[in-house]
Amino acid sequence: MRKLFFRKLLYKNAFSAFDSLRPKSNLKMIEIEKLFAGDTRTVARAITKVENGANESSELMKAVFSRTGNALVIGITGAPGAGKSSLVDKLALYYKNKGERIGIIAVDPSSPFSGGAILGDRIRMSTLGLDKNIFIRSMATRGNLGGLSRTTVDAVAILDAAGFDKIIVETVGVGQDEVEIVKTADVSVVVLVPGMGDDIQAIKAGIMEIGDVFVINKADREGVLRTEKELEALLSLAHRPDFWNPPIIKTVATESKGIEDLSKAIESYYEFQKTGENLERRVAIAKWRLLGLLQEKLLADVLSKNGSSEKLEKLAQEVAEKKTNPYSAVEEILS
Amino acid sequence: MRKLFFRKLLYKNAFSAFDSLRPKSNLKMIEIEKLFAGDTRTVARAITKVENGANESSELMKAVFSRTGNALVIGITGAPGAGKSSLVDKLALYYKNKGERIGIIAVDPSSPFSGGAILGDRIRMSTLGLDKNIFIRSMATRGNLGGLSRTTVDAVAILDAAGFDKIIVETVGVGQDEVEIVKTADVSVVVLVPGMGDDIQAIKAGIMEIGDVFVINKADREGVLRTEKELEALLSLAHRPDFWNPPIIKTVATESKGIEDLSKAIESYYEFQKTGENLERRVAIAKWRLLGLLQEKLLADVLSKNGSSEKLEKLAQEVAEKKTNPYSAVEEILS
Repeated sequence: MRKLFFRKLLYKNAFSAFDSLRPKSNLKMIEIEKLFAGDTRTVARAITKVENGANESSELMKAVFSRTGNALVIGITGAPGAGKSSLVDKLALYYKNKGERIGIIAVDPSSPFSGGAILGDRIRMSTLGLDKNIFIRSMATRGNLGGLSRTTVDAVAILDAAGFDKIIVETVGVGQDEVEIVKTADVSVVVLVPGMGDDIQAIKAGIMEIGDVFVINKADREGVLRTEKELEALLSLAHRPDFWNPPIIKTVATESKGIEDLSKAIESYYEFQKTGENLERRVAIAKWRLLGLLQEKLLADVLSKNGSSEKLEKLAQEVAEKKTNPYSAVEEILS
Repeated sequence: MRKLFFRKLLYKNAFSAFDSLRPKSNLKMIEIEKLFAGDTRTVARAITKVENGANESSELMKAVFSRTGNALVIGITGAPGAGKSSLVDKLALYYKNKGERIGIIAVDPSSPFSGGAILGDRIRMSTLGLDKNIFIRSMATRGNLGGLSRTTVDAVAILDAAGFDKIIVETVGVGQDEVEIVKTADVSVVVLVPGMGDDIQAIKAGIMEIGDVFVINKADREGVLRTEKELEALLSLAHRPDFWNPPIIKTVATESKGIEDLSKAIESYYEFQKTGENLERRVAIAKWRLLGLLQEKLLADVLSKNGSSEKLEKLAQEVAEKKTNPYSAVEEILS
């Protein structure tokens, strides 16, 4: 009941298309050995468990964490329409042809009213096919109650423990949540398109400092040179604490152009940061994760108390009718 | 100490440029009558209080809420580079010339590494000038610990109680946080630009259902007609629960074209939704707000306990070094 309440809290049916394929029965135990052996159906079920809530997946994740740290995690972000999905697909195919196993987590914006991640899977399947070496999962955004980031990071850990060589996390948009997720990757790729012109200014604050590698996709379009020059100028102003100079790669993802260059650039930053001192960064990420988990758990504990959910419903009604205010209502829930 | 810890948690100096203008002394009590009288310096101080944390501003906000509900709150979102800021500025000037007072909350992406909202204020001031009838405040995003949305919504309530006629909340990007904020507005405006071409598909999931009014800005550019047709096609597929048919307005914000049309479209939806049944929507928003506040308060309470902050630091270090996992660490903090 509580779990159901949690899930339906803000969005109805906030499941990816993939989830409809999972067995309806709730597995009490994930077969952890099958997971470590890389069985994709077990991986899919484990991720579903993680989506069900931190409390439920706690034991699973404790087992998983000891096996993580072998995959290269690539975060890919950029404005809508930059062609991120095509780029990710082509990159995944490139790695697959080299004999690697690739996991893709696509964070889709969910529709705030009707719920559900709407893009994605069905379209993607047509490009990548049903290949046991490429695992794709869409994860819907779920409001800002801390669930999204934890879920995504846990899903990455599961793929890592399951022996995937490359894990690509793809986020639509340049919102704060998306930025946070991309930050947890080993290598972050920011995708731009030509002709953003002066508008490149508008996005510099949010993403310039995130990108370890920059891609100008659709590089057969007019204005590539200008976008490249502007990007170079902006990057020359940015001061990275690690003194890395982010490369700019030109690609035409739909024609598979520039994909190898991109993979080389990703590899070169991965090698670079491994040699450097990045403990501070990892501590910051760990702290952010702990705070998110802590919040999720605290809220779940409060709402699991007898009558809390009903009280919340009643008070939300009263706040909407202006009979009380949110601050007094929260005090009442906690009293 | 705790407050300081909270603030510095993820981002250093995550303050807007405006904050540097506030007096260094901490006001124990906001002069609530001066706030209700619309004094802008008091408004600025009240918003700063709200940024300091839910616990500190709790008493203030309880007083504020009783006075809210008079302003028209307009949420404006869209992809980076769509010209949202110019549009907001011109809309604000339009309202000002009609004798109204306008509050603008610009939610800027903060730099994830160096912190701080980087766009905004200084540029904006040159367009809008120092006008006592236009209040502008940049608020930096602060990670996904629930602070951003609560802070923004509280700031809107303060401006509302202070007698501002129109309150414009402008968000960069189409991330989930931004979407949530825009949803709390009376009227949500989604800004597009011509030439997004097929790419419009990519954003439909996230924002098509949010927009009560759509704007095609930079409508002097090539491709307006195509973008308009595509948008119309998409909107005809969407089923809004309230059967509203979102108008599409063409603007050239830099030349102040189409601003009056936009204001009329905003007004028409505002009138429409007032007559309709929107209690359900307001209850959903209230519930979302209660959950966010609850999380923020629960986390603050845990971290205020003696030694909790130090424990968190220590455990974050251990997680980063893989000596423990986040789930076990959270259990230890709560034990």
